[in-house]
Amino acid sequence: MTPNDIFDSESTICAVSTPHGCGGIAVIRVSGDKAIEIVQRVWRGKNLTALAGHTAHFGEIVDPEHPDDVLDECIATLFRGPRSFTGEDTVELSIHGSRWIQREVLALLVRQGARLALPGEYTRRAMLNGRLDLAQAEAVADIIASSSRAAHRLAATQLKGVFSQRLASLRERLLTLASLLELELDFSEEDVEFADRSELYRLSEEIAEAVGSLHKSYSAGAAIKDGIPVAIAGATNAGKSSLLNRLLSDDRAIVSDIHGTTRDTIEETLEVGDYLFRFIDTAGLRDTTDRIEQLGIERSLAAIDKARIVILVVDPQSPTPRQLIDSIRAKTDAAVIIFQNKQDITAPLSPILPDLPGATIVKGSAMTGEGVDDLLKQLVAEIESTQTGAEDGVMVTNARHAAILAEAHQSALKVMDSLSSSLPPEFTAQHLRQTISHLSAITGDIPTPEILNNIFTHFCIGK
Amino acid sequence: MTPNDIFDSESTICAVSTPHGCGGIAVIRVSGDKAIEIVQRVWRGKNLTALAGHTAHFGEIVDPEHPDDVLDECIATLFRGPRSFTGEDTVELSIHGSRWIQREVLALLVRQGARLALPGEYTRRAMLNGRLDLAQAEAVADIIASSSRAAHRLAATQLKGVFSQRLASLRERLLTLASLLELELDFSEEDVEFADRSELYRLSEEIAEAVGSLHKSYSAGAAIKDGIPVAIAGATNAGKSSLLNRLLSDDRAIVSDIHGTTRDTIEETLEVGDYLFRFIDTAGLRDTTDRIEQLGIERSLAAIDKARIVILVVDPQSPTPRQLIDSIRAKTDAAVIIFQNKQDITAPLSPILPDLPGATIVKGSAMTGEGVDDLLKQLVAEIESTQTGAEDGVMVTNARHAAILAEAHQSALKVMDSLSSSLPPEFTAQHLRQTISHLSAITGDIPTPEILNNIFTHFCIGK
Repeated sequence: MTPNDIFDSESTICAVSTPHGCGGIAVIRVSGDKAIEIVQRVWRGKNLTALAGHTAHFGEIVDPEHPDDVLDECIATLFRGPRSFTGEDTVELSIHGSRWIQREVLALLVRQGARLALPGEYTRRAMLNGRLDLAQAEAVADIIASSSRAAHRLAATQLKGVFSQRLASLRERLLTLASLLELELDFSEEDVEFADRSELYRLSEEIAEAVGSLHKSYSAGAAIKDGIPVAIAGATNAGKSSLLNRLLSDDRAIVSDIHGTTRDTIEETLEVGDYLFRFIDTAGLRDTTDRIEQLGIERSLAAIDKARIVILVVDPQSPTPRQLIDSIRAKTDAAVIIFQNKQDITAPLSPILPDLPGATIVKGSAMTGEGVDDLLKQLVAEIESTQTGAEDGVMVTNARHAAILAEAHQSALKVMDSLSSSLPPEFTAQHLRQTISHLSAITGDIPTPEILNNIFTHFCIGK
Repeated sequence: MTPNDIFDSESTICAVSTPHGCGGIAVIRVSGDKAIEIVQRVWRGKNLTALAGHTAHFGEIVDPEHPDDVLDECIATLFRGPRSFTGEDTVELSIHGSRWIQREVLALLVRQGARLALPGEYTRRAMLNGRLDLAQAEAVADIIASSSRAAHRLAATQLKGVFSQRLASLRERLLTLASLLELELDFSEEDVEFADRSELYRLSEEIAEAVGSLHKSYSAGAAIKDGIPVAIAGATNAGKSSLLNRLLSDDRAIVSDIHGTTRDTIEETLEVGDYLFRFIDTAGLRDTTDRIEQLGIERSLAAIDKARIVILVVDPQSPTPRQLIDSIRAKTDAAVIIFQNKQDITAPLSPILPDLPGATIVKGSAMTGEGVDDLLKQLVAEIESTQTGAEDGVMVTNARHAAILAEAHQSALKVMDSLSSSLPPEFTAQHLRQTISHLSAITGDIPTPEILNNIFTHFCIGK
């Protein structure tokens, strides 16, 4: 069986679409040509095959081989293709949420000819049936995984297709020019020039710029999606651990455990306003008392390396290690906030503060909580100030997109290059084709089965 | 606020009804007078207030205060009271299953005037609106918790109302006689006899018998519901642990972790045929090697005490400790299966077997797996042979019911007693009233708020 056969699109598929576990109700989704017919065989109630789409009906689920045993009472909601999520006939069975019932109903549907759905298969079918493009399909997974308002907003924008539309419009204009150029090649011996070179150059430039700025938005977009990495650095005893405790334990914000798909560990996260902040485990040694200075610094350095925001905690009576200050200075892509701690203790006349130009200073006390609200506000302000680059809310959050955009950017630059150095049109045409192909790969206009499998196997089953 | 106020029935309630967690879709149920009106305020799509019940509609969830932010795409299914689970107007919102979205949509509904539902509140409303009686409502919770076909069948029978109907018909006949007797008391000075004493006696006898047999079914019913407790007993080195491993690790059956509501630990359970067997932790020392003989026996004794089936594992070359045999003999309410182990090793001419009349002997080898299938068949056979007492599939699975049935049984016996000893009709009438009241308490015809709260707070939220 090739990867493509696994996702055969002829069979009728079924899966529990609601979260795993036991609950009040669970929803089993059956989709495919025979969805209504298969459900009808295990259904006692009105004749579903005769009913209109977008209607809900009460009935019983009964195994035709054990007609005396009612498996469950159930609400069946009918969707007739193409007016369904997948574009196919779909029945959603809302049953009692016992794991036993969920399993038995699935087994029953399989005995009647349905097949268990693979991860993401419903969304894949929606795409194959033209209900979504590939970037929108990926956005469905992001929507389900989103854990803050900002992350959700990015995914929703992508699902609405704003991102796809922008790429599609660039690609279409490029296609026109590319076909004119291909036409030239067909008539190459005649030395005609169908494609306006200066228009082609302007367009390539525009594309290079648009694609480049989208690619640049990835780092911020990914941070918003996965949680913005924040390092809490500082000398030993500056108050890093107290500050982290204070940030996490107060009631002002909801702390949630986010199981990342790419991370193995559960990190401490904090939702502030619309954003999820993820504290890189720098103050994680707070339960041991005999840690040594250098070990603390090494952890701080590692955290700074991964952070988009560095909070440098400073005890105004003690200096911050040189090593730490240097590495923060070297880290030009992170915002720096100095938390001038221990304001509850009599403040020295001349506090010892590191020389970090551009850093915001927040005064407070991790012990009493003073200044911590200001610090949270500053975290949000730093993130919002770095987002000015994103036009109409579009930011790239997907590693696959970022990689393709980087390639598209390179190809567009090569188009410009070949035009300005007056290379033969064959070179220009080749780079053009590559640029178009890269842009298409994002929305899935020319997806390969490998790309599709790779994308959809990261979905949860039932979607 | 009194317990009754918590469950005020005027407000419109909302909750996530699908299992907790992240999944493809989640369903939020909104029920109450203002359900449709409240959803309409956060809805962008067709005008829900104008649409018929039992229809499904695609639309968007939008916070009216942030009309540019689409919170999610959604399918809203409308149910108009009384044709809904609760009997009230209900909207089920099928949204994307991100925890963030679930939380935000709930928060939005609450801001629009809905209240978060308490555990079991939907089912409670269904009962208050006459859609279910109390025993049926309790069956809903059992259905959701059921973890084997047999457990599910018992709950489904109860949900269908078979149990309630049987009690109701007994109660009604009793009521007629009771009112005749009450009439007599009103005319006591006239020395009339409206109620036929012999009929009253016959009926009381019938009730005492029916109620008694229902009460007796509780022990088996509870075992089926929670998993049938099986003890694996035997001398050290008889092969208890190997047998348990063999039972649990083979692919022939599905092993599931059942978190019991009344148990603190996760036990090893095994589904065989329609039944769930729960192995009491007797072979739980299998990871330690230095256990001593007496400790092993003590564990076996404790397990036997709780079991409905005892599997006594016997090494045919070694005797079984006397203490063990005695306690199995004393345990008259459990079935005993002797597993004559180690048949892969050359069998002795005269195997040493304990003298346990009535025990079934299964020969096999925990090492090779020989005989284990027979053992499993025997487990099912033992359980099915003990169920002959249950008429029309009705068994009591609920501790509350069992306790009330025991009381009803006592009251019915007292009615018979007072009749046969020709006590004044006042005594008979009092016992009659008590019997009726007990029977009513099961179906909730006269429930107290305390009983209701106690029952429904054990539901999951969203049901």
